[in-house]
Amino acid sequence: MSDIIVQKYGGSSVANPEKIMNVAKRVTSYKMKGCDLVVVVSASGDTTDELIELAHKITDDPPEREMDMLISTGEQASVALLAMAIDKLGFEAISFTGAQVGIITDSSYTKAKILDINTKRILEELRKGKIVIVAGFQGVNLNHDITTLGRGGSDMTGVAIAKVLNAKMCEIYTDVEGVYTADPRIVPNAKKLNRISYDEMLEMASLGAKVMQARSIECAKKFNIKIHVRSSFNNREGTIISEEVDSMENIVVSGVTLNKEEAKLTICDVPDKPGLAAKIFKKLSLANINIDMIIQNISRTRCTDISFTVLKEDLKKTLKVTKKIVREIGAKEVIEDQDIAKVSIVGVGMKSHSGIAAKMFEALASKNINIEMISTSEIKISCVIKKRFAEDAVRAIHDKFKLYKVRTIKE
Amino acid sequence: MSDIIVQKYGGSSVANPEKIMNVAKRVTSYKMKGCDLVVVVSASGDTTDELIELAHKITDDPPEREMDMLISTGEQASVALLAMAIDKLGFEAISFTGAQVGIITDSSYTKAKILDINTKRILEELRKGKIVIVAGFQGVNLNHDITTLGRGGSDMTGVAIAKVLNAKMCEIYTDVEGVYTADPRIVPNAKKLNRISYDEMLEMASLGAKVMQARSIECAKKFNIKIHVRSSFNNREGTIISEEVDSMENIVVSGVTLNKEEAKLTICDVPDKPGLAAKIFKKLSLANINIDMIIQNISRTRCTDISFTVLKEDLKKTLKVTKKIVREIGAKEVIEDQDIAKVSIVGVGMKSHSGIAAKMFEALASKNINIEMISTSEIKISCVIKKRFAEDAVRAIHDKFKLYKVRTIKE
Repeated sequence: MSDIIVQKYGGSSVANPEKIMNVAKRVTSYKMKGCDLVVVVSASGDTTDELIELAHKITDDPPEREMDMLISTGEQASVALLAMAIDKLGFEAISFTGAQVGIITDSSYTKAKILDINTKRILEELRKGKIVIVAGFQGVNLNHDITTLGRGGSDMTGVAIAKVLNAKMCEIYTDVEGVYTADPRIVPNAKKLNRISYDEMLEMASLGAKVMQARSIECAKKFNIKIHVRSSFNNREGTIISEEVDSMENIVVSGVTLNKEEAKLTICDVPDKPGLAAKIFKKLSLANINIDMIIQNISRTRCTDISFTVLKEDLKKTLKVTKKIVREIGAKEVIEDQDIAKVSIVGVGMKSHSGIAAKMFEALASKNINIEMISTSEIKISCVIKKRFAEDAVRAIHDKFKLYKVRTIKE
Repeated sequence: MSDIIVQKYGGSSVANPEKIMNVAKRVTSYKMKGCDLVVVVSASGDTTDELIELAHKITDDPPEREMDMLISTGEQASVALLAMAIDKLGFEAISFTGAQVGIITDSSYTKAKILDINTKRILEELRKGKIVIVAGFQGVNLNHDITTLGRGGSDMTGVAIAKVLNAKMCEIYTDVEGVYTADPRIVPNAKKLNRISYDEMLEMASLGAKVMQARSIECAKKFNIKIHVRSSFNNREGTIISEEVDSMENIVVSGVTLNKEEAKLTICDVPDKPGLAAKIFKKLSLANINIDMIIQNISRTRCTDISFTVLKEDLKKTLKVTKKIVREIGAKEVIEDQDIAKVSIVGVGMKSHSGIAAKMFEALASKNINIEMISTSEIKISCVIKKRFAEDAVRAIHDKFKLYKVRTIKE
């Protein structure tokens, strides 16, 4: 068999019959080059959201098993339509649901994890010369119940299939041309990166750059699967995501990201006793709430303030849990703040360059933007600021690090 | 376990969230009476047609395997939504695709036949007290490829499940209140039949009364499964379809039906040689064309005319094949006539009553309606007439046999 290439097309790439035909043309052009192709497809356009809305017209609290049964129909329709389009172009294609190609997951409905993929049927059809089309985002548990992999789960399907088939490349087709130094809608002179490391991409994803699902990047990193993020609307090269190469270190900052999806909570006057912070965050974790940044001020008296950020969609639940904690530990109160934004810079070069944080803070200071929280990792610095300064902050930082200059990284 | 009841709800019964909630209420009311319930559901409203239309926007000739992959999503969405609605009412339900409950079919995509149903999972869930919801119209072949059962195939799913579960009754919920002596839109004083035999119902279905799929009635007859056709919009009793009981014989004519879906073709001047009729209809059958009525006039000279009717949707294909036959056998020409309608009367009582045909012809004559073709069976008489007289003919026959009088058949 030839080299196997896995291509994943997102919902915007298959939003209508015309776009589906375009995808079919691209797929068959690769087939003509002699590649064996496995194509993973998402539900078209807003189908998933429409199905969720339909479910909520029936009940506020749909059982998750039934939700997965419902929304998995979106990808099933997409794969069938793409197979028809490829057939029309005179090539042989065959479509499969997650169940049919044995994408076995755990039973965490709406956010299942892939346990195994049975490659038998896929390889059988590839050997017959067919283009294999697989429904993204879905699988089945060991009881044959349909599961879905969570938002962006089709990326996971693509990466997992690339792994089990030992594919040469996993191409992620989307409606942007690759990974940019910043959101081009905010920073018009943002530049496309030709290359980025898994770790940087992971930070980008977790910071709100919605090019690829974070979990699928982790998986690609774990198995060293080369990803090519590119546009389904033209033939330009996009961004390659791979393991770190030496030349990446010359690039100090790869990109600036912005996240407005979080809210800040502050527990005031926490008694300064050992173990209270642990107690607070244990309780929040037990309630399945993901905490992002945590700041604890040095205590001046016998009390201290603890601030943390959570996703806005978890705010209601978090407040409920936190108010209970406040009573239990004898703190004063909890204050919420939804008027925040998080700007971050990401770059593997930070590891070996100093003064990066200072440069970022200078950029913010030059625009008179006050920093409310700071958190850093080896390859990332994040600052929480008032939401109304968000776009200005991104532009100022982008300028400060001269990210508008084209940089090309080679292996 | 209690008595099992199978209920099948058609697309109009689950056309929107409100109607789905109504179905959920009806289903749970049966559950409260202590029944074990298996509910078969069609795709909602016009979903199937919309999906077919979508496919045709991509290609005129979609591969049938992919068509089944596409349209089977309609029922999958319905079963999930109904399970959610039942959950909201505080009852436990679980939905299944055809594949998940092991509805095994042959590989005739778009018109597959059920070979077997694995009852294991259904019985398991019924034993847990759950209401089991099964997607109608679909199954899988032995290769796990999704198949569909043809128009009205959800009826077949209902009847087949009733059979394998040895259910007490198979209720077919639809948007009419049962089987009528004639179409109430044509004959305002048409009466609902409280009871009808399988054979009569089969003739009705094949004659164009679209209450139930013909194949599923055959299956019900074969396994003597009692059917109750009734409305999903009220609680009135509908029509029971069962084996013939003695008292049915007192009813000479059960109903009048009308079919405008056929066209008539006449092959003129067929040489009067043995075997030519066989040759003609063999060729048409090889082209997968279903012939309904066939009339051959007694030959006056050495030539004869052969007329037959086919479904209008097969007309184009039939003309093509027939023109070739005309050349081969040395006939003169083929004439088509789309301006026809077929009116029929159906009733098991005909077997033991004479003069029924004459009475029907009198009814037509009284309205000056000319009869073009006649065909009879043991329990049916059909006449082909000009289409413009169709409704008048139905009303005249309905009156002549006094079908407006309520008749009740008891076992």
